[in-house]
Amino acid sequence: MTDRLGAPRAEPIFERLALIGVGLIGSSIARAAREMGLARTIVAIDRDEGVVGRVRDLGIADEATGDALAGVRDCDHVILCVPVGACGTVAAAIRDGLKPGAVVSDVGSVKASVVAQVAPHLPEGVAFVPAHPVAGTEHSGPESGFPTLFLNRWCILTPPEGTPPEALERVRAFWTAMGSNVEIMTPEHHDLVLAITSHVPHLIAYNIVGTAADLETVTQSEVIKFSAGGFRDFTRIAASDPTMWRDIFLHNKGAVLEMLGRLNEDIALLARAIRWDDGDALFNLFTRTRAIRRSIITQGQETPEPDFGRRRPD
Amino acid sequence: MTDRLGAPRAEPIFERLALIGVGLIGSSIARAAREMGLARTIVAIDRDEGVVGRVRDLGIADEATGDALAGVRDCDHVILCVPVGACGTVAAAIRDGLKPGAVVSDVGSVKASVVAQVAPHLPEGVAFVPAHPVAGTEHSGPESGFPTLFLNRWCILTPPEGTPPEALERVRAFWTAMGSNVEIMTPEHHDLVLAITSHVPHLIAYNIVGTAADLETVTQSEVIKFSAGGFRDFTRIAASDPTMWRDIFLHNKGAVLEMLGRLNEDIALLARAIRWDDGDALFNLFTRTRAIRRSIITQGQETPEPDFGRRRPD
Ligand SMILES: NC(=O)c1ccc[n+]([C@@H]2O[C@H](COP(=O)([O-])OP(=O)(O)OC[C@H]3O[C@@H](n4cnc5c(N)ncnc54)[C@H](OP(=O)(O)O)[C@@H]3O)[C@@H](O)[C@H]2O)c1
Ligand SMILES: NC(=O)c1ccc[n+]([C@@H]2O[C@H](COP(=O)([O-])OP(=O)(O)OC[C@H]3O[C@@H](n4cnc5c(N)ncnc54)[C@H](OP(=O)(O)O)[C@@H]3O)[C@@H](O)[C@H]2O)c1
Repeated sequence: MTDRLGAPRAEPIFERLALIGVGLIGSSIARAAREMGLARTIVAIDRDEGVVGRVRDLGIADEATGDALAGVRDCDHVILCVPVGACGTVAAAIRDGLKPGAVVSDVGSVKASVVAQVAPHLPEGVAFVPAHPVAGTEHSGPESGFPTLFLNRWCILTPPEGTPPEALERVRAFWTAMGSNVEIMTPEHHDLVLAITSHVPHLIAYNIVGTAADLETVTQSEVIKFSAGGFRDFTRIAASDPTMWRDIFLHNKGAVLEMLGRLNEDIALLARAIRWDDGDALFNLFTRTRAIRRSIITQGQETPEPDFGRRRPD
Repeated sequence: MTDRLGAPRAEPIFERLALIGVGLIGSSIARAAREMGLARTIVAIDRDEGVVGRVRDLGIADEATGDALAGVRDCDHVILCVPVGACGTVAAAIRDGLKPGAVVSDVGSVKASVVAQVAPHLPEGVAFVPAHPVAGTEHSGPESGFPTLFLNRWCILTPPEGTPPEALERVRAFWTAMGSNVEIMTPEHHDLVLAITSHVPHLIAYNIVGTAADLETVTQSEVIKFSAGGFRDFTRIAASDPTMWRDIFLHNKGAVLEMLGRLNEDIALLARAIRWDDGDALFNLFTRTRAIRRSIITQGQETPEPDFGRRRPD
């Protein structure tokens, strides 16, 4: 398992790449695409002129603008890097600027809803290859990005039927060059998989942090002091961007509620095992769950260091 | 906030310290007590002769034995570092070896049950100062310990009424010298606080990892591949020692089930907000939870680095 990006490409995959939304993901793509030579010109687009200025200062794109319609003109790859609830509006805003043969993509954490929002706005001759890089941190904004964010992580593509094979291949090559492993599935299956591997974990984390803050028997100051017992782990993902996560839950409602139902069934069994002193049931579950972490580490999706390799006093 | 232990003491606090159970916690105490000069002699006791041999090889104690009764003889501080379910048996086994004036303690993650198990076995003239260092990793065994485990972490003491003040002060000084902040509370309040900051988070983590492994619509291999979306965070605490955690749940039943009930009420509200598109309710919760992580970081209980400072490709 390598921990660096490879040598840059001799020839770019795209001539002109537009990134709409230059937060954690958009700015990480800008940095990785620049480092790997994936586009001759990178155009960063953000609705917030303050962010446009910061992007210029960071020097992570060749051009930066607040005007999405003008920004996408002549681009052969356009990636929406905005919250999933904003994708339809952004697609509508750029439709008249998209050039024939352009490949549009996105990075949204939900896929069926994004496809439904975006596809209707795309003109004939423009291909749509939705993507979701399964990689991130709890931080946001253009300063938080880094070029190796996608390295050794999976990127899921959910191309609609009829997607031109060469559009799919270029998008695949683009993500592969940034170090990702690419997998293809339907938007619906994606949404189910991510509900259990990402969305419900976030919901559970937000929930426990919220509940702990509201208890009348334990003070918030106690919760904070004694958080090293396990609670603090949950606060990381419960510190992720509120807009992004609101949109994810509203746009992947069905799968999230279904997975939550499953979780509730299983927690009821666990509560029962505790109430009736069924130590064996607990012990068996706790042994199985250990094995799953080992597989995640073996497959390079997690650090083998104890405590996530958290900064440790020396 | 310092990240090193201070200078060793000129005079030890205890003459002869016995640690019963030399796993993560016992071996970390051995290392820290040695480094800080907290005891003239450290006796490591483990029921497993193989572990006794490894402890000798590691050189973390002055003496190592498999015989608890002989090991505690002449010791003025004896700390039980075994799973909470084993504390009563261990106390019974050492009672006839305890010297008058000795101070017995433990490190169990549950306190009311440990007090109930241990106190009846202690002879007149032996003080009991139960302790719980809120610090750990998901690893176990004598190799996993390290001397700064307790640095900048809280250690909770739950002395019963009538504990001699000098016994309490020596235990407090012992933990303070290992870098901990000491707080005193009743066993019952401890168990409620830890239920929400540690026990229920572990239960939730074990539960989601178990549920994910058993789904029929998403394969285990998909769960592993796409775990970087949040799921993998939960697998860390769900990889903790099964015996230790079985015992914690069985011995802190009341508080764990009570806190789980609270969590269930709140998750029902969240599910309703998702179902009825109440984006504001979600957004408000997600903003509040962010603030809690900030406090935990400010108070030195968590690393400020994104993604826990997980090893990042450079
Ligand atoms: N963070 C992760 O871990 C992660 C991982 C995989 C995929 N994703 C997906 O990536 C996308 C971006 O997330 P991120 O983490 O990069 O978020 P971020 O750092 O918060 O950046 C979001 C970007 O979207 C822009 N934006 C927000 N609302 C908008 C609107 N209504 N119209 C136009 N632009 C808008 C923001 O503009 P301003 O500059 O005005 O704020 C900002 O540039 C989301 O769809 C998310 O689901 C995130
Ligand atoms: N790990 C944490 O994060 C953490 C944090 C705070 C407090 N604690 C508490 O610390 C205590 C020890 O935990 P640990 O993490 O150090 O566990 P560990 O690394 O698994 O070590 C447990 C030790 O207890 C011994 N032991 C187990 N069952 C026993 C029995 N029935 N009779 C006698 N000895 C027995 C083990 O002996 P063998 O060598 O034979 O296995 C081993 O030496 C537990 O009460 C736990 O609740 C743990």
